[in-house]
Amino acid sequence: MAHLLSTSCSLNIPPSCKKPKCLLVNQCSSSGFPASFSLPTSTSRSKMLILHGKGPKRSSTIYAMAVSLSQESKAQPGSSFPQETGEAGSPKKVMVIGGDGYCGWATALHLSNRNYEVAIVDNLVRRLFDHQLGLDSLTPISSIHNRIRCWKSLTGKDIQLHIGDICDFEFLAETFKSFEPDAVVHFGEQRSAPYSMIDRSRAVFTQQNNVIGTLNVLFAIKEYRDECHLVKLGTMGEYGTPNIDIEEGYITITHNGRTDTLPYPKQASSFYHLSKVHDSHNIAFTCKAWGIRATDLNQGVVYGLRTDETAMHDELCNRFDYDGVFGTALNRFCVQAAVGHPLTVYGKGGQTRGYLDIRDTVQCVELAIANPAQRGEFRVFNQFTEQFSVNELAALVTKAGEKLGIEVKTVSVPNPRVEAEEHYYNAKHTKLIELGLKPHLLSDALLDSLLNFAIKYKDRVDPKQIMPSVSWRKIGVKPKTVAV
Amino acid sequence: MAHLLSTSCSLNIPPSCKKPKCLLVNQCSSSGFPASFSLPTSTSRSKMLILHGKGPKRSSTIYAMAVSLSQESKAQPGSSFPQETGEAGSPKKVMVIGGDGYCGWATALHLSNRNYEVAIVDNLVRRLFDHQLGLDSLTPISSIHNRIRCWKSLTGKDIQLHIGDICDFEFLAETFKSFEPDAVVHFGEQRSAPYSMIDRSRAVFTQQNNVIGTLNVLFAIKEYRDECHLVKLGTMGEYGTPNIDIEEGYITITHNGRTDTLPYPKQASSFYHLSKVHDSHNIAFTCKAWGIRATDLNQGVVYGLRTDETAMHDELCNRFDYDGVFGTALNRFCVQAAVGHPLTVYGKGGQTRGYLDIRDTVQCVELAIANPAQRGEFRVFNQFTEQFSVNELAALVTKAGEKLGIEVKTVSVPNPRVEAEEHYYNAKHTKLIELGLKPHLLSDALLDSLLNFAIKYKDRVDPKQIMPSVSWRKIGVKPKTVAV
Repeated sequence: MAHLLSTSCSLNIPPSCKKPKCLLVNQCSSSGFPASFSLPTSTSRSKMLILHGKGPKRSSTIYAMAVSLSQESKAQPGSSFPQETGEAGSPKKVMVIGGDGYCGWATALHLSNRNYEVAIVDNLVRRLFDHQLGLDSLTPISSIHNRIRCWKSLTGKDIQLHIGDICDFEFLAETFKSFEPDAVVHFGEQRSAPYSMIDRSRAVFTQQNNVIGTLNVLFAIKEYRDECHLVKLGTMGEYGTPNIDIEEGYITITHNGRTDTLPYPKQASSFYHLSKVHDSHNIAFTCKAWGIRATDLNQGVVYGLRTDETAMHDELCNRFDYDGVFGTALNRFCVQAAVGHPLTVYGKGGQTRGYLDIRDTVQCVELAIANPAQRGEFRVFNQFTEQFSVNELAALVTKAGEKLGIEVKTVSVPNPRVEAEEHYYNAKHTKLIELGLKPHLLSDALLDSLLNFAIKYKDRVDPKQIMPSVSWRKIGVKPKTVAV
Repeated sequence: MAHLLSTSCSLNIPPSCKKPKCLLVNQCSSSGFPASFSLPTSTSRSKMLILHGKGPKRSSTIYAMAVSLSQESKAQPGSSFPQETGEAGSPKKVMVIGGDGYCGWATALHLSNRNYEVAIVDNLVRRLFDHQLGLDSLTPISSIHNRIRCWKSLTGKDIQLHIGDICDFEFLAETFKSFEPDAVVHFGEQRSAPYSMIDRSRAVFTQQNNVIGTLNVLFAIKEYRDECHLVKLGTMGEYGTPNIDIEEGYITITHNGRTDTLPYPKQASSFYHLSKVHDSHNIAFTCKAWGIRATDLNQGVVYGLRTDETAMHDELCNRFDYDGVFGTALNRFCVQAAVGHPLTVYGKGGQTRGYLDIRDTVQCVELAIANPAQRGEFRVFNQFTEQFSVNELAALVTKAGEKLGIEVKTVSVPNPRVEAEEHYYNAKHTKLIELGLKPHLLSDALLDSLLNFAIKYKDRVDPKQIMPSVSWRKIGVKPKTVAV
């Protein structure tokens, strides 16, 4: 059943991907294929290599599958990676929207390694943002096509690839109908607060892209896969920094002698964070009205580079953002320490947030999939493992630097954001622990490892990317262009 | 200064508008004018008749002003309507976005009558919805152009008209720069819950149109009129039906020994209501980050037809929706009673909401404008005067019908919505009262009057419009077409 369509596209073998059992997958732009091509109904759609196009549209679907189910079954026992499936019975099919991104790529590989059948859906716009803003990942990253080929060559496991925009419902509907997911993990949003605060058009893009994309996913589930479990990436930033304990999604309030459990109040502080608040409200409504089953993972700030799977080959290496737009605090600090740049603490540095290792991100998503929400349930997990203030992080990096013989300085820079710099913060995060999460805590060892990565790649650091370049207060209506 | 530009457009005199002091205002499509036309800088922009275009764009700006300030000042003392200005000093300039709609038109006239300088901004898409869905107002309504001309002829007062879409930021920016509003009243949203639940594309339209439009208004205020007060129409539906008292925007919560005042939790139950929740969160953020001054009017269900101003002339008559998509409950019941159609109670009829007379809508908006929020303040008023369950409304209409000799029957129809049909409901609404609101309560007299209107126009009733046609649960992804 493999190679159903022989095409004239050249085989593009990743030069670094040399394992002998590599099964090659053709890759081709979809534009050369007839719009009316359709699959033989007697074969399994999800198990074939198909190159498929619909004429001049802004999305195309590339099914990158090269082995039959029987071949795949044979290949698995020989693999050296854990083979347990998330749930008894046949492997579950998981669609990972945004599967080419930082969390999405690590998650897609982790789920594939755990024998879930994975389809990545991504329009790759995250890579375009880097081009447009003159940014780049600290680590060199391969194309999504080469990444998937390499994974296949190393493990024998297929990951489907559907290139397109989930805001284009026709595209999304096709991916749902062909892949028939049991779970959808939705990372496919513009995920940077500073990006959303660059200018009006990017603020509008962020909310439109995120809110409408998620609405489309909800409609696709309702229409085509009503039992499908939506695992949606939210953010701890939805809660803001209230002066009371943060609960997981809901809070029981007694008021004037009556009691109810209500959605936890939201106080987001960027157009990005607000887009996630909007998503949460929309999803909650569809759970109630349509019986959608959904888990909202209110994730903290993610750090780290390696997961078991991305560490298997350079071609699988994850992206690592340290710039002022997409870089998260701890990753950025490690890069700054490595290149001798002072750690840039915004304002007083008392800003406290939840943090987690990317190895826990992938673990949490798997736990959510393996223990799905009930029909009609809108479940919220706070997905982080430890709390730190920015000053605490800076002190940890400084201490880790000392061990490696690096002198680390810290400088306070004017806070480009509008946020409390000294505040109470105590957020619950027990639900994922109860499901079995075994956290990787931020230890000196990990900091050493993170720092060592930063040192390994320090020649790739662009110092111009480090400082904050986006001001919450100065955002204007004119499109902001990027100077060289 | 009037008639700065003589044009070849024909004068379009409303036939029913025959008051002798009528000052005519030219009207013309903008397409015939050079894109580069600009105003002499030595004259006041807001006091001239200008026909202004920018080539083939989806929006155009029509300034419909024909008298100089001195002429206007002379005209006013002769008017028989109250002349107090909302605040001491020169009249305030108020932009009414959505000023051709049910609440917007009544508000624009009321503010103009109270000597505010008013500019209506509207893309008239509400009229398009009627065409597309085969609906019509119970009352015959004039074009916005004729409405404004008639108002001018009756009172000597100018209302500017800017036709365009606030989702088009270039258009909105031009209106801000030319009119320079002191307050913006924002009714310019898709405002029907059933409309937002017709199909996927209308759900997406509702959220995109409402959220992006409001974002654009916030950016326009920040960029061009940072002292301008935003008076935004929200909805009581943002709160849902919690089992505790509903406060005005915020609730003080004591939790685990600590206390904070936080945004009241939101539980909206349609894509429309959710769009208002999204707006509220976005506005709150910009108040904090940019110092925007904003009042969110969480309005209840509006009923009634006449205000002092719309009653002045048939040409000023407001729209009155009784259909299953745009009709609000009490208005619909009165029409049903008038034509001998049973009152259609959805489900058990215990659904309780806040209600207000449209005369109180215009009063509340004026109070909000006259008492603006502070810089950086996000103020929330619950804008309704009385609570009723649907069954209570049906009983009131039945009783009023009896007095008029009409036998009124009630029928329970399957509830097309997903909502609690028996629930606790107790919502605070004291802030507008504290500012001076004198409510028009729903009395038998008013019901008589409402019923009499319905009877007056009953020959215009289309019985096919009455029954609910949109199901919360059956909404699908295919665009829903309208059968004849």
